Amino acid sequence: MEWKRHDLFDLQDLSRAEIELILETAKSFKEVSTRDVKKVPALRGKTVVMLFFEPSTRTRISFELAAKRLSADTLNISASASSLSKGESVLDTARNIEAMNVDMIVVRHKSAGVPKILADHLSSSIINAGDGCRAHPTQALLDMFTIREKLGRIEGLKVGIIGDILHSRVARSNIVGLTKMGAQVTVCGPSTLIPIGIEQMGARKTYCVDDVVAESDVLIFLRLQRERQEEQFLPSIREYAQVFGVGPERLKKAKKNVVIMHPGPTNRGVELTAEVADDPRSVILDQVTNGVAVRMAVLYLLAGAQR
Amino acid sequence: MEWKRHDLFDLQDLSRAEIELILETAKSFKEVSTRDVKKVPALRGKTVVMLFFEPSTRTRISFELAAKRLSADTLNISASASSLSKGESVLDTARNIEAMNVDMIVVRHKSAGVPKILADHLSSSIINAGDGCRAHPTQALLDMFTIREKLGRIEGLKVGIIGDILHSRVARSNIVGLTKMGAQVTVCGPSTLIPIGIEQMGARKTYCVDDVVAESDVLIFLRLQRERQEEQFLPSIREYAQVFGVGPERLKKAKKNVVIMHPGPTNRGVELTAEVADDPRSVILDQVTNGVAVRMAVLYLLAGAQR
Amino acid sequence: MEWKRHDLFDLQDLSRAEIELILETAKSFKEVSTRDVKKVPALRGKTVVMLFFEPSTRTRISFELAAKRLSADTLNISASASSLSKGESVLDTARNIEAMNVDMIVVRHKSAGVPKILADHLSSSIINAGDGCRAHPTQALLDMFTIREKLGRIEGLKVGIIGDILHSRVARSNIVGLTKMGAQVTVCGPSTLIPIGIEQMGARKTYCVDDVVAESDVLIFLRLQRERQEEQFLPSIREYAQVFGVGPERLKKAKKNVVIMHPGPTNRGVELTAEVADDPRSVILDQVTNGVAVRMAVLYLLAGAQR
Repeated sequence: MEWKRHDLFDLQDLSRAEIELILETAKSFKEVSTRDVKKVPALRGKTVVMLFFEPSTRTRISFELAAKRLSADTLNISASASSLSKGESVLDTARNIEAMNVDMIVVRHKSAGVPKILADHLSSSIINAGDGCRAHPTQALLDMFTIREKLGRIEGLKVGIIGDILHSRVARSNIVGLTKMGAQVTVCGPSTLIPIGIEQMGARKTYCVDDVVAESDVLIFLRLQRERQEEQFLPSIREYAQVFGVGPERLKKAKKNVVIMHPGPTNRGVELTAEVADDPRSVILDQVTNGVAVRMAVLYLLAGAQR
Repeated sequence: MEWKRHDLFDLQDLSRAEIELILETAKSFKEVSTRDVKKVPALRGKTVVMLFFEPSTRTRISFELAAKRLSADTLNISASASSLSKGESVLDTARNIEAMNVDMIVVRHKSAGVPKILADHLSSSIINAGDGCRAHPTQALLDMFTIREKLGRIEGLKVGIIGDILHSRVARSNIVGLTKMGAQVTVCGPSTLIPIGIEQMGARKTYCVDDVVAESDVLIFLRLQRERQEEQFLPSIREYAQVFGVGPERLKKAKKNVVIMHPGPTNRGVELTAEVADDPRSVILDQVTNGVAVRMAVLYLLAGAQR
Repeated sequence: MEWKRHDLFDLQDLSRAEIELILETAKSFKEVSTRDVKKVPALRGKTVVMLFFEPSTRTRISFELAAKRLSADTLNISASASSLSKGESVLDTARNIEAMNVDMIVVRHKSAGVPKILADHLSSSIINAGDGCRAHPTQALLDMFTIREKLGRIEGLKVGIIGDILHSRVARSNIVGLTKMGAQVTVCGPSTLIPIGIEQMGARKTYCVDDVVAESDVLIFLRLQRERQEEQFLPSIREYAQVFGVGPERLKKAKKNVVIMHPGPTNRGVELTAEVADDPRSVILDQVTNGVAVRMAVLYLLAGAQR
């Protein structure tokens, strides 16, 4: 198939074939990062801007490395350093950046929908690097890439996502993507942290972590933000860790070749213990490695599509 | 003509022929940024440092992109992150940077004259990216480039600059440059915000915004800093907007093909309304685009001049 | 000899022949930075990360320029911007960075031993850019390079290090390196700021600055942190300047061709006066220039050693 999209907001927009094409493309880019010279000239002379209105070291450097390994020129703009402090709107800021003949803008913003608004008004390619609690498509893509790398397929797998589903763009993007690829997703967490109507996204829900640990081929743990306690979503972090946290005892019930995932940074001792994070079946660092490959694939494919 | 300058502080130093040469050179560089591969090898292996003692995202990224599209290596140094916090002088900081065999230093500082002091003591090329209220030569150059692009000439045009002239390095550099190129500049603003003796720079002044709107071929709006109200230069921002702000009504008096400019970021609803900023005759985003081309020309010409 | 090390923590680990090799390699890289095109393709397609948990503009940009002139891709990560604020450990942060197939990590941290811990757990090359009060090996290497450049040798020279020895990683690394290369090091400072047992590192000590100034071939001044007064290591900065500071009077007692050094930034009027810092025998800016060459040599040699 031929890639035609110019922007990436959400896996909801993508067909299964498009997701397959990204994952296949990422496979060949993964090899580039293992070479002695980790660089291909694909995006030479293109300008890729990382426009981050929320701080994020991991995602930003993953995109930045991906762009550099494709030979693009990169620019980092963080909200605090930008003209925004002078009262300019997000769209104005982006329009000004685009006016410098920028090819692609990787954007993260705390409000859902910002990448879409930018794409509606700009001709640069827009890539969503996380918008509010809504979507984080490249994270879901790297998770799918990692699952397929470890288990050979996604179709028919049982994937459990454990934690604060309500506030998680990672959970939402994974539910959408994994379901589309034929997996069965079950979410698990305190009832206050599971959004009403999650079943309409195609996921099942359970409040019993032991069940989800026992039945899943893949376990995706989510970081529990400590603020949730103050915000009264939880009685206490300690209670969360006891009821939903997974340690070696609980992990014994899991399938022998379960794949343990986490988007990072981990909160060791809360959502999982250090033993689980460092278990041989944990692929947390593979996720990081694959993130660069998947982002190279996304940048490469979008750059090839002319608006 | 052959370019011989090694530094750029102020358009006052430049002859009309030198300004012409920059604008002509920028024309060919503008084309580079529209190519598929936006990059020429002109400054390969040169080091360009952006040394910003005042925060500025726009000007910094415009210079950074210009340098990258010329294939230079770039370094960003912001004052807060620098050794300055350890009590070192600006000149010491710059000397240390130059000692790393840096070719060009793009400097912004809140005190007028800092770029000149650096150039007096250093052999790296110094480029003024804004010094206090004194000069911002690349902004005036990009404004002149844009005017000539839109109207075919500068000679004989009437240019109105509206706003806080007193604190504006953009106004001063434009008065110097435009006058040198044969335009007639009129400044307009509250009497507290027009410096005494502005006529000696070759500008006329008026307190009547309707007059300047009616007679000008080009209108340059300046950003009104909200601090001016607290500093008692103005009774209130609202009153400023009523008396000097330009909206669709007032704009009706303008020439049919008036060129509307603003160095950005705009304060919509203060110096101009959103309708005026987005009017088809507004070239605010063209200014941003041309900024990269003009800065490429300046870096390129200065790099070719050996001290 | 063939270079075999994969990491650089401390000159203690290096043989005299290894130090010689770095200094010889730096000599050829110094020439690169004087070329019109200051760039060699040695590290093309390699990724070098500057991971700074303590702010430092000078050392960071020196490494960054060194990496860029070797054609490596570079990434800057500062602690405040990193996930550390989310409670992740230093080792977790570094593991995540390495997972992106990063070749070399240049690390600065306020705790002694952090670079060693990282190297024990990671396969990327680790370069110590300063760990607590323990070591700053590239600073000592550039100091040795500069001494040899000015005096033709290190063997047999008398080197005086004056100032706050107790808190200085520069002093420790220089004592180790210079002693290994056959110099005789004398440290001088207030008794509260000379660590007990310094003689066991091979240095002599004196409290008399006039003696050390008179007898030394090389004088290395250390920056006196103003905090030391509040921490009660000193009665006052003014008293320190009177007793240990060196001005033109005191410098008269020095050898005619004494070499005056300082790692920067200088505290003029405290450890030395402006006259001494700007004396024709001062090589403070040569140190900065040589820093890039020495760091290019270190990156180049380590990159060639496979683990």
